[in-house]
Amino acid sequence: MLGLMQAWPLTVDRILDHARTWHGDSEIVTRSVEGPVVRTTYAEAHRRAKRLSNALKDLGVQPGDRVATLAWNTARHLETWYAIMGMGAVCHTLNPRLFADQLCYIINHAADKVILTDLTFAPLLLAQRDKMPTVERIIVMTDEAHMTGVGDPDALCFETLIAKYGEDFAWGGFDENTAAGLCYTSGTTGNPKGVLYSHRSNFLHTLVTLGGDLLGISARDVVLPIVPMFHANAWGLSFSAPAAGAKLVMPGGRLDGASVHELLESEGVTFSAAVPTVWQMLLNHLRQTDGRLTTLKRVVIGGAAVPEALVRAFQDDFGVEVTHAWGMTETSPLGTEAQPTARTLALDPESQFRLKMKQGRPPLGIEMKLTDGAGRPLPHDGKTSGHLKVKGPFVAGAYFGEQGGEILDEEGFFDTGDVGTIDDYGFMQITDRAKDVIKSGGEWISSIEIENLAMGHPKAELCAVIGARHPKWDERPVLLVKLKPEQIATREDFLDFLEGKIARWWMPDDVLFVSDIPLGPTGKIDKKALRERMKDYMLPSAR
Amino acid sequence: MLGLMQAWPLTVDRILDHARTWHGDSEIVTRSVEGPVVRTTYAEAHRRAKRLSNALKDLGVQPGDRVATLAWNTARHLETWYAIMGMGAVCHTLNPRLFADQLCYIINHAADKVILTDLTFAPLLLAQRDKMPTVERIIVMTDEAHMTGVGDPDALCFETLIAKYGEDFAWGGFDENTAAGLCYTSGTTGNPKGVLYSHRSNFLHTLVTLGGDLLGISARDVVLPIVPMFHANAWGLSFSAPAAGAKLVMPGGRLDGASVHELLESEGVTFSAAVPTVWQMLLNHLRQTDGRLTTLKRVVIGGAAVPEALVRAFQDDFGVEVTHAWGMTETSPLGTEAQPTARTLALDPESQFRLKMKQGRPPLGIEMKLTDGAGRPLPHDGKTSGHLKVKGPFVAGAYFGEQGGEILDEEGFFDTGDVGTIDDYGFMQITDRAKDVIKSGGEWISSIEIENLAMGHPKAELCAVIGARHPKWDERPVLLVKLKPEQIATREDFLDFLEGKIARWWMPDDVLFVSDIPLGPTGKIDKKALRERMKDYMLPSAR
Repeated sequence: MLGLMQAWPLTVDRILDHARTWHGDSEIVTRSVEGPVVRTTYAEAHRRAKRLSNALKDLGVQPGDRVATLAWNTARHLETWYAIMGMGAVCHTLNPRLFADQLCYIINHAADKVILTDLTFAPLLLAQRDKMPTVERIIVMTDEAHMTGVGDPDALCFETLIAKYGEDFAWGGFDENTAAGLCYTSGTTGNPKGVLYSHRSNFLHTLVTLGGDLLGISARDVVLPIVPMFHANAWGLSFSAPAAGAKLVMPGGRLDGASVHELLESEGVTFSAAVPTVWQMLLNHLRQTDGRLTTLKRVVIGGAAVPEALVRAFQDDFGVEVTHAWGMTETSPLGTEAQPTARTLALDPESQFRLKMKQGRPPLGIEMKLTDGAGRPLPHDGKTSGHLKVKGPFVAGAYFGEQGGEILDEEGFFDTGDVGTIDDYGFMQITDRAKDVIKSGGEWISSIEIENLAMGHPKAELCAVIGARHPKWDERPVLLVKLKPEQIATREDFLDFLEGKIARWWMPDDVLFVSDIPLGPTGKIDKKALRERMKDYMLPSAR
Repeated sequence: MLGLMQAWPLTVDRILDHARTWHGDSEIVTRSVEGPVVRTTYAEAHRRAKRLSNALKDLGVQPGDRVATLAWNTARHLETWYAIMGMGAVCHTLNPRLFADQLCYIINHAADKVILTDLTFAPLLLAQRDKMPTVERIIVMTDEAHMTGVGDPDALCFETLIAKYGEDFAWGGFDENTAAGLCYTSGTTGNPKGVLYSHRSNFLHTLVTLGGDLLGISARDVVLPIVPMFHANAWGLSFSAPAAGAKLVMPGGRLDGASVHELLESEGVTFSAAVPTVWQMLLNHLRQTDGRLTTLKRVVIGGAAVPEALVRAFQDDFGVEVTHAWGMTETSPLGTEAQPTARTLALDPESQFRLKMKQGRPPLGIEMKLTDGAGRPLPHDGKTSGHLKVKGPFVAGAYFGEQGGEILDEEGFFDTGDVGTIDDYGFMQITDRAKDVIKSGGEWISSIEIENLAMGHPKAELCAVIGARHPKWDERPVLLVKLKPEQIATREDFLDFLEGKIARWWMPDDVLFVSDIPLGPTGKIDKKALRERMKDYMLPSAR
């Protein structure tokens, strides 16, 4: 027997409709790509998004067509998302940090029909124009006055275009499983793979992340999404902020400490989310300028290993609550957050801090398990490392355009490629990527754990640990260190520093000083590139 | 094109699975019907619920069958809900405050197959046993030691029954639109009508109410649901508390001030929800005993008009944040809550308090509109009263067993039967029930507003306002007053008290003193019964 409640498809256009109706005056403030800080509201953004839907339809965009964006976090980018998704087309977010050939690969794989680009990225895109046969139109997200520098007569001007169209457009009305967004993983192995979000998955991710154990933002918050809309959906904030009716502050392309600090203070930001490097830049700026944070209450950090010192500085020196989160493109992206529970709040402060540094607990809507290589469940004892697998309504079930690629196990779980532990409090900790874990004598050594510890050395700017071939142990860890400017250090300085902090058999067999460590397009260490560089290296212990 | 995210039906069994896995040690503490305070955990409740599913299956319960409960808020009641819903049967909550013949009507209308009852209500139920032909079994939710008093050899003992069955039972695996729960409206007009919730509607209501603009409870909360599971789903707390992993405190049948206060303090309750009368009893107790509230942070009040003095007392004297909520059986039940926004927090304290006394804003997932009698939209100006209509995935679309009864308007909205205003801040205020509103000279007078004001008179225990026939004005208001014990008052005392607080033309044409005012089964004034009593009354002004 079926229930008798209303049929109300979970489509994301309803999110902006809600913001328009109940929080129409709430602002969206943007540090524009053109320069000045510009202000609009949810009501106005709703009207402009509808104009854009009409324009795209007139350009031949049909439901299901892919329309790409290559843009910073701005109100125009937000309008563009809703315009595309509301009409049933698929919003494909392009990551400008990708190499040009990867960008072309992705555009061609998705068969994008139209691309909307910021002024910043227009030259990059137009230089590759002839390598994108499916792309019929490029729209530059600016006004007519700034089109002069673009230098392509075929490129359309966003403002000029939408001014021609009316505000009436019927969004939604389709199956909630309709594709809404497309985002390619950074592809550290093989080609990038496309995650095809549905309206339902985005809507449910929004509701779940609005809960008090994840982002928990409300109509009382002022939200600054520093995490980009072009990668992992700005952690869903482009949906959750309007859903909550929170004022939204968009940082555009200027993510340096001074620019971020200025926005935090001038707009009264209460909540923000970013990767550690951005927070580190802000912290450096605050220290150099003796700056304060007078309105910021909470920040969520994720996307890469978080230095302890950073978390302590925000908490202790600036009174900002920091929580650590984990997720990936395939999880929409939030999977866990290290929010305390009544049980963990009863622990001593140091134990609480240890839990805070873990990646945290999954909310209702994310099932999570830890398995060995054969798929057998492993205990939640905080010690046993295993493959981390997830399941849920906003977790990928397949990749776009990959025929017959079954990516789920027999219980329907997706293998995250991460290796981690889960403790008795339900807190998960990532110890490594499965492909980066160092297999030494049949046991696992966490490259990330050694890296994080080594990063605590005052002379270290960046550290990486990879496994090197060893005739007896199979693999042994090697530490690569990029020193801070003007620093000098020896192999022994680092080994002494690690001594006592990790098990003896985890101690690196070698320490190498390098002038750079390669990073991937999302700012993480590119271990694939590093292993390629190191392919002729031989351990002293293996010689 | 459809998205490629995982298929993961939103079925409520996943909520208790989540609590078991991630918050297995979180407690459910019950003041049992038998007397003592008893303790269990989500992990244990999960196991016992599975045993009960096996028992019910063995008793012949099939997916889609209706299984009723007649019980207080207890851990056993919670286990029973999940046992029934998890196996795809329909949990029909019976309201013990209904008259015996209404109860029989409902049981027969639903064609309940099994009824689980508390010891308290077993005599009531067994006395009507032969009027319930579809009911095959009655299970008393107690242990064998307490069965002696039941006096029916056919009644089964809950504990004895579940002890016979194992913990393996595959819950879920069906369409998320499958019926999960059934609750009849109190039926102030006509027969009670059944709202048939689906797994999807309950799951979405859970996610929405976990948001920071509604209940916002988290794993750091200790939740005391005083609102009953037998009516309007305990405002969803039986789902949202385990979903958040919050400790749950169940008050059983003792809702007097002393009992509630004892539980609040002994269990460290941080969050509670109840109707105003319960809060009033608690407040009286606190004042009589000079009691304090040392852990309680937030309470949500709803279900009836909230006296201002009550809200101010909790806030100012006890430091407890009070929020006002609105909803109904047909909205699962939460529809709005008066949580402030950044904009309202910028107002002066008195204006903020005025907004707090309104019923509040709808979350994403509730669409709401105000219309005139012809269905035309009315402005959100805070002044214009209109019919309040709602739409959303946890709003009723039809009533159970009502053939061909179309209850939605052409835009798919459900008419709540309430009359209200919506202001510029998006705050809705109920001014009356549509059928209670007094139509005087073509204009509307809010019976509720006059009642609430009259209730502020120090001699008033309960006040009711209804419309009486008038040859010129069609209807005019009459105030009925039940005085507090040992009080004496005159018609003029009350008219003088109202003078200046309401428009002249809203002033009651008469004041009648009565020894009782009839209440319905959910504690609200039964205006239908009152109008029946008053049918021969004639206004002095109409004579």
